[in-house]
Amino acid sequence: MSEVIKTVWKGNMAFEWDVNGHKIMIDAVEAVGGENRGPQPKPFMLASLGGCTGMDVISILRKMKVSEKLDDFTVEVSGELTTEHPKHYVSMHVNYIFTAKNGEELPFEKLKKAVSLSEERYCGVSEVYRKAGIKMTSEITVK
Amino acid sequence: MSEVIKTVWKGNMAFEWDVNGHKIMIDAVEAVGGENRGPQPKPFMLASLGGCTGMDVISILRKMKVSEKLDDFTVEVSGELTTEHPKHYVSMHVNYIFTAKNGEELPFEKLKKAVSLSEERYCGVSEVYRKAGIKMTSEITVK
Repeated sequence: MSEVIKTVWKGNMAFEWDVNGHKIMIDAVEAVGGENRGPQPKPFMLASLGGCTGMDVISILRKMKVSEKLDDFTVEVSGELTTEHPKHYVSMHVNYIFTAKNGEELPFEKLKKAVSLSEERYCGVSEVYRKAGIKMTSEITVK
Repeated sequence: MSEVIKTVWKGNMAFEWDVNGHKIMIDAVEAVGGENRGPQPKPFMLASLGGCTGMDVISILRKMKVSEKLDDFTVEVSGELTTEHPKHYVSMHVNYIFTAKNGEELPFEKLKKAVSLSEERYCGVSEVYRKAGIKMTSEITVK
């Protein structure tokens, strides 16, 4: 399967992405000559991971009938960059934060199972980062 | 240097990214239970590359006084996914498409130099993909 993403220059340091028909403005910050008209592109390596694994997990939890007990579900992805060029991620940590609805108890084993299935089987983003030698860690937080 | 990106569940298969204060809705397509309220997360691996190398190249071309001769600059990134889980990119191709303003001639050697500097020295996104064993190729198109 093949995909094509366009990144079109909009003057100065700004560009516009066309991702399957959804348009997003990106820009550099003022310190490097941009105007901060949109986010920077590199952190989308982390965002892509958070979105990919988040969708895997919620999809599995819906099948397990666990999603209806959730008041909130947030995936926080942090990444550590080198200081030398080319500045790239050398480690990433994913925190899966689940908040139960009032009066509901979340089944921890099922949350763990959903996260493991994403990490080991479904998430094609983390697969690439692991192959690249990025140190990948994760934790599950239940509130 | 450390960065944190949040991906917050918005019901069904939709999530909202917070990338340095810029919020973006992502979603799955209808075929897999989503409502297509936003783009999917995985193609942002390609978008991140296009944005990163596009900003490198335009930054260098501004210093070389070449950017003022440009009517348009588009970076097209295509990627080939495996069909097996975890579905991940195995090859990527970047097409740097430069269009000159009416009556201007673009200095091809300078375009080539700017692209090489990004590929070999500055782009931390392609660095990770190369390390992951993804087959990376590129071309320069002048219009």
